[in-house]
Amino acid sequence: MTSQLFSPDVEQVLDLSGIFVFALSGGLLAVRKNFDVFGIAVLAEATALGGGVIRDLVIGAVPPAAFTNTGYLVTPLLAAVVVFFLHPEVARINRTVQTLDALGLGLFCVTGTAKAHDYGLGVVASIALGTITAAGGGVIRDVLANETPSLLRWDRSLYAVPAIVGSVLTALLISTDSLDGVTGSASALFAFGIRMLAIRYEWRAPRAWHRGSSNSGET
Amino acid sequence: MTSQLFSPDVEQVLDLSGIFVFALSGGLLAVRKNFDVFGIAVLAEATALGGGVIRDLVIGAVPPAAFTNTGYLVTPLLAAVVVFFLHPEVARINRTVQTLDALGLGLFCVTGTAKAHDYGLGVVASIALGTITAAGGGVIRDVLANETPSLLRWDRSLYAVPAIVGSVLTALLISTDSLDGVTGSASALFAFGIRMLAIRYEWRAPRAWHRGSSNSGET
Amino acid sequence: MTSQLFSPDVEQVLDLSGIFVFALSGGLLAVRKNFDVFGIAVLAEATALGGGVIRDLVIGAVPPAAFTNTGYLVTPLLAAVVVFFLHPEVARINRTVQTLDALGLGLFCVTGTAKAHDYGLGVVASIALGTITAAGGGVIRDVLANETPSLLRWDRSLYAVPAIVGSVLTALLISTDSLDGVTGSASALFAFGIRMLAIRYEWRAPRAWHRGSSNSGET
Repeated sequence: MTSQLFSPDVEQVLDLSGIFVFALSGGLLAVRKNFDVFGIAVLAEATALGGGVIRDLVIGAVPPAAFTNTGYLVTPLLAAVVVFFLHPEVARINRTVQTLDALGLGLFCVTGTAKAHDYGLGVVASIALGTITAAGGGVIRDVLANETPSLLRWDRSLYAVPAIVGSVLTALLISTDSLDGVTGSASALFAFGIRMLAIRYEWRAPRAWHRGSSNSGET
Repeated sequence: MTSQLFSPDVEQVLDLSGIFVFALSGGLLAVRKNFDVFGIAVLAEATALGGGVIRDLVIGAVPPAAFTNTGYLVTPLLAAVVVFFLHPEVARINRTVQTLDALGLGLFCVTGTAKAHDYGLGVVASIALGTITAAGGGVIRDVLANETPSLLRWDRSLYAVPAIVGSVLTALLISTDSLDGVTGSASALFAFGIRMLAIRYEWRAPRAWHRGSSNSGET
Repeated sequence: MTSQLFSPDVEQVLDLSGIFVFALSGGLLAVRKNFDVFGIAVLAEATALGGGVIRDLVIGAVPPAAFTNTGYLVTPLLAAVVVFFLHPEVARINRTVQTLDALGLGLFCVTGTAKAHDYGLGVVASIALGTITAAGGGVIRDVLANETPSLLRWDRSLYAVPAIVGSVLTALLISTDSLDGVTGSASALFAFGIRMLAIRYEWRAPRAWHRGSSNSGET
């Protein structure tokens, strides 16, 4: 299976780290929305695991990994506890959280694309599922919190693009039979780098071309 | 299968009763949102069946029970008809509806946990799926109605806790090989009792610890 | 398989046409919501493919057709490009877009019902899944855009009814063993016709009966 990019132990540590940071972002939104401790836990779980669960349901890997690996289910609860007690401190190190979140984004688009391909999906579908793995949890987080998904909003720095780039790179590596731990890590780091640049320079994606007066300015 | 807690006829009656009451709560929200009769029917179906459909998709029980048992699909429509014609009366007996809803909550967390375990999921995953079975439909209801899910809000009485308690009890009974009709019913009634106490005494879950000034008061 | 109503080439052309128009409606909402180009693409994909993906997950047809047929994934991107550059023109031919959308509605309720039946689901479940195939994408579109689903709102012309009628007709044809390309097309055109009449005469579905003063006028 090409998806076994790293030794199982390394993969597990990377996965759990990514899940932990995604869960922090879910928990922090729950605090901003004034939710209770269960709201914090639910948003932490949904943000951290939602993208991977959708991928696994689509490719037919049931039960999804999130439900067969107890560490995946418990890690967001730990993040929820951290947010519950330390949310001002977590919010204060927002740059660190964003950096770790970008690392999770890079990691999950690569592993998501590889897993979809392992289950026999085509190139385009694998890229789509890599992107969903990396960015889907954040969309679920925002929908549950009754917010417009930040992925869709033009006034947020690029999030979809790094995930797509990482997924495309991974698909290229797979199709040239050269995906391994080194090239996979390089793809993840490249996606991470684009995301960090997007944050620092506030890169935006364009809105619809030549917008007419009837479309001015909501949201 | 441990999930066969009751005789099939009893289980069917219990399930349909729970589905009917969950559907009432979906229909009543649709009326409050000024939706049309199809909006009432859609919210009734989604509230009543949504949690179980997610559980069945996750554990690989496809088609989900909601789509193989015609009674499950038709019952929410009956509830929608009742709400359509009698919603002021249904709203007036709100305490009765809440009591029946709490019974559904107790029932579905027990049967959901047991079914997940039957399909080979671990303890933590089974507890998670029991909770999703009982509480997921209400989240879907609120998301569809473009409301902040009441499950997440601190200003609503506890709903997740009774579901979690009932699921944990069921998992304990399974792991000690002592889940049967009597102990299962006792777990469901215990979850029901916690929910009723939470309604009567307006139990709230805590919000994040030591909330800083930057987090004051929205929602 | 009864779902093979047309020759594969004809079916493919019809499917891709329906997907394209559904994607246009998703893209146009993204423009109205001021989303960026990725928001346009995501809403186009979700609107066009969401209903069919839910149907396929429920009936166990994984990976869903949307992920095994590259044309299905790429077509919404083309629609997104069209909307990105030409949205004022697309919005101006709104009546044409609505007409094509109604054709997609008619087509997908028929093929969705037939596919569900092919996978062994019962009559009521097949009708439900035909309706979900045709109308589910629009609900997902509105939920992602943080709007109240227009399917549920009383102040929008009938959308669920044509889908239900087309699905019921298809189920009747299946149960009398007379579903073929001609009768299937007739069912789709009948659903299309009802939708067009609903648009022209602004047919509304009724809201809850004898609405009390406590329910007046939100939304």
